[in-house]
Amino acid sequence: MRRIRLTLAYDGTDYHGWQVQPGLATIQGTLEQVLGEIEGHTVHVAGSGRTDAGVHALRQVAAVSLSNPIPLQNLRKAVNRQLPPAIRVLEVDEAVPDFHPRHHAVSKTYEYRIFRGEVCPPTEWRYVYHHPYPIDVAHMAPLATLIEGEHDFAAFAASDEREMESTRRAIFSSRLESEGERLFYRVSGSGFLKHMVRNIVGALLEGGKGNLDEKSLLKFLSDGGDQRAGPTAPAKGLFLICVNYDR
Amino acid sequence: MRRIRLTLAYDGTDYHGWQVQPGLATIQGTLEQVLGEIEGHTVHVAGSGRTDAGVHALRQVAAVSLSNPIPLQNLRKAVNRQLPPAIRVLEVDEAVPDFHPRHHAVSKTYEYRIFRGEVCPPTEWRYVYHHPYPIDVAHMAPLATLIEGEHDFAAFAASDEREMESTRRAIFSSRLESEGERLFYRVSGSGFLKHMVRNIVGALLEGGKGNLDEKSLLKFLSDGGDQRAGPTAPAKGLFLICVNYDR
Repeated sequence: MRRIRLTLAYDGTDYHGWQVQPGLATIQGTLEQVLGEIEGHTVHVAGSGRTDAGVHALRQVAAVSLSNPIPLQNLRKAVNRQLPPAIRVLEVDEAVPDFHPRHHAVSKTYEYRIFRGEVCPPTEWRYVYHHPYPIDVAHMAPLATLIEGEHDFAAFAASDEREMESTRRAIFSSRLESEGERLFYRVSGSGFLKHMVRNIVGALLEGGKGNLDEKSLLKFLSDGGDQRAGPTAPAKGLFLICVNYDR
Repeated sequence: MRRIRLTLAYDGTDYHGWQVQPGLATIQGTLEQVLGEIEGHTVHVAGSGRTDAGVHALRQVAAVSLSNPIPLQNLRKAVNRQLPPAIRVLEVDEAVPDFHPRHHAVSKTYEYRIFRGEVCPPTEWRYVYHHPYPIDVAHMAPLATLIEGEHDFAAFAASDEREMESTRRAIFSSRLESEGERLFYRVSGSGFLKHMVRNIVGALLEGGKGNLDEKSLLKFLSDGGDQRAGPTAPAKGLFLICVNYDR
């Protein structure tokens, strides 16, 4: 069996997230169907992690084991020919036999896009959170930087993940940038809890509205606690930018 | 009655073009429905010209007559609240009573977008013509410039427009630019025949494949004739950029 690493981009708008769910269109399910047809029987596609319904990816990483000897470039073309245009295989590579996209990932980078203008361009509504309300960006940027470091992110976890073994995560970089009517929040870390990036963005927006200051944010980051730091920002603004592996 | 000028952007992917067609979703039909609800009875929305099914617009201009005294900014908000996100009213202005977006237009600008890379990004497939085949762009750019000036564009008209009163049109600017894996063809002129921009792009691509040289293009531009200069490029790559009016 060959172990094949796939680098994928997708528009998550019309999918119920990454993970297979019976009767629903998902990214993993669509890939397993197309790759299963090429292999001639059921295959399992492993991903670097789930993405929620509506979340997009620029370079998600997945892996599949195939016995079909098809050359890599032909495989990419054959898969892209069968996939809908919303899911694309950017690269295919031979991997070591035990390669696992989730277990071997050392870091991930996400970007969250906010459009602040009054009218959201028709070509962008699927890919931004349209937020045409007053916010103080100068107050949000320093809050974003406070996220960097190792913290207990329990206050930024989805409610069904609060009871996990550990809610501590290391964030290498957390920056908010403003470009005209657009805000870009970019965050890199060793790992992320479910909804964590969207909850961080929700908290930063609370900061922008004057409802969260540096002291309160630091408290959320230090004691975890039962409270949530902010609402969950919509999925459509979130992109998985890349997944990094050691050589 | 007030005469209202509307500046519109739309993603044409899911619409059967600008013009009302019974039982089909069109841009004009959708606007007439929403504005008719605000006005309380049927209204007619006039456009600067039709766009084909699948063609997009960044700044289309339309006009409607209303007796409803709603302030302009409230009108824009009310209409955008009712419209699908693929159609947006960018601006609303009071116009002179006889303003007609088509009769009073003095020029229009279109852009055609081609993506040449092997894999088309999932967030862009609706907005580009994906053309991952070898073409000689250095040969295409001078052909594009030859389009400038006043010519008989019969060879670039849709077949049902060949019999029109006149197929002469003045083109002020016609340029092809290459940016990495992308080609942008931008053209401004006093008016355009049906399919004319898409047929020009089709001809330029024939040039890029070595099937059309400067001499043949000039012949198509001088004698019109029965032949077509090239195939019609797909609608999805075409954007109406703006419509210009005298002060």
